[in-house]
Amino acid sequence: MPSPAHGRRLDAVPGPFTPRTPRVAAARRLHRRRDRDATGRFLAEGPQAVREALTRPGLVVELFGTPAALDRHRDLAARAATADVPVSEVTEEAIGVLAETVAPQGLVAVCRHLDVPLDRALATAPRLVAVLAGIRDPGNAGTVLRTADAAGAQVVVFAGDTVDPYNGKCVRASAGSLFHVDVVRATDPGEVVGALRAAGLTVLATTGYGDSDLDDLADAGRLAAPTAWLFGSEAHGLPGELTDAADARVRVPLHGRAESLNLAAAAAVCLYASAKAQRSPVRGSSAKESVRP
Amino acid sequence: MPSPAHGRRLDAVPGPFTPRTPRVAAARRLHRRRDRDATGRFLAEGPQAVREALTRPGLVVELFGTPAALDRHRDLAARAATADVPVSEVTEEAIGVLAETVAPQGLVAVCRHLDVPLDRALATAPRLVAVLAGIRDPGNAGTVLRTADAAGAQVVVFAGDTVDPYNGKCVRASAGSLFHVDVVRATDPGEVVGALRAAGLTVLATTGYGDSDLDDLADAGRLAAPTAWLFGSEAHGLPGELTDAADARVRVPLHGRAESLNLAAAAAVCLYASAKAQRSPVRGSSAKESVRP
Repeated sequence: MPSPAHGRRLDAVPGPFTPRTPRVAAARRLHRRRDRDATGRFLAEGPQAVREALTRPGLVVELFGTPAALDRHRDLAARAATADVPVSEVTEEAIGVLAETVAPQGLVAVCRHLDVPLDRALATAPRLVAVLAGIRDPGNAGTVLRTADAAGAQVVVFAGDTVDPYNGKCVRASAGSLFHVDVVRATDPGEVVGALRAAGLTVLATTGYGDSDLDDLADAGRLAAPTAWLFGSEAHGLPGELTDAADARVRVPLHGRAESLNLAAAAAVCLYASAKAQRSPVRGSSAKESVRP
Repeated sequence: MPSPAHGRRLDAVPGPFTPRTPRVAAARRLHRRRDRDATGRFLAEGPQAVREALTRPGLVVELFGTPAALDRHRDLAARAATADVPVSEVTEEAIGVLAETVAPQGLVAVCRHLDVPLDRALATAPRLVAVLAGIRDPGNAGTVLRTADAAGAQVVVFAGDTVDPYNGKCVRASAGSLFHVDVVRATDPGEVVGALRAAGLTVLATTGYGDSDLDDLADAGRLAAPTAWLFGSEAHGLPGELTDAADARVRVPLHGRAESLNLAAAAAVCLYASAKAQRSPVRGSSAKESVRP
């Protein structure tokens, strides 16, 4: 049994770690938020997430893999070794307890938390920001993170009682985007809104009862400015103090008979409306002329 | 024990049905696709779905509810009774086996299948159509159905080996939209594309590898025409013969570092781009001038 205090390299001989190996047992505890918060670490599972994590220097603390997976993904094992990241062979049973998916693909990385303070994220002068305020469902939060990345957002803020961005389901739903954008955790959503406006961003709150129609805002050229979008939970929406604090309360138009959109769809429509407006100076200015006074 | 051969009205006296009551047992079997296909019936669960189902005459075959739920939703029970729909009191245990959610809200309706043939749906000259081709995840299919309804699509086609639209999870994810649009089931997606084009619709295939950028199409005014969007599965995308048969292969632009969007987000962005273009003659024409030759 190798000493749990030292990482093993691929070229080391001893047998794979089991679920009882102390380092595997310790890593497994990162499924619990309490242990993630206490250690500042989380798990990223599967080759895609591991590859993304390894692109950020210093992020990965250790890589666990079954012999078959490490053989299948020799490039990742080699990249980890080059970066002085311990690579540890584990049994199928061990990967089973480290991974949360039914068919784990044999690789799990222990990573350091990567969130940055809001002021540091805002110092990069982002033009598109997504703020998740009170989103408790980790799959929803991860999906909005992924969509925000796709739409070109540079910063995603997890505010208030929003789910932990390092929740396994959120990490998986983000499909690597957790590693692409500046992730911020903030306890007070109201302070976040104040800081975003102080940084020159227009703050738009999405709500089914908003008085501004998304298409009207786009036609009026009002989406071309640097913008932060606030998204609330599907069940409860945004708290009133946040919609009040925003520069506008925006509804996505409902053309059919659906009563609402789900969160992922609404966020996609809003974020892509901003992405298009910010990249279309011609449309922004020509459309302005067609706006009713 | 009431006779299982006759529906009871709310004013009838005998005790509630149990899981062993033959009609409850028969309804429960509708969780299986085989039984849905054989009977042409499915289950809609919860007050929202039941309310929507009751708006369509002849759709609801029977309404099951716990005494508490039927009391809480007296309007629905009354509407069912007015429409000569048998309303049957059931035990909490019976609603537990009829419902698929962990916290059922006490109401489950047995409904008749409501899909219509493609030619009948196309006879209404729809301007926006969504085609699900090979989407196996019922939650994804239901979400796209809901989004299509919100974006104003009049027809949603479940084609090829796409999940059964009457799958309980799909019904729930549609949030009532199953009852709002013309739902079509078609075995051959290729024939669907042919029929859509014959009906004068532009057929656009969504694919991450499309040669047409969504924003460019919008700017060129090419989304203002009546349009049918083809969506494939998140895992496998659309089959090649469908992308080949479409009028254009369209990609949603990825501005950040995300490798792709999830299906719900991509469908939302595409369908809403069409919705906006079809409602914006001014932008359509003025934008045309700014298109690069």
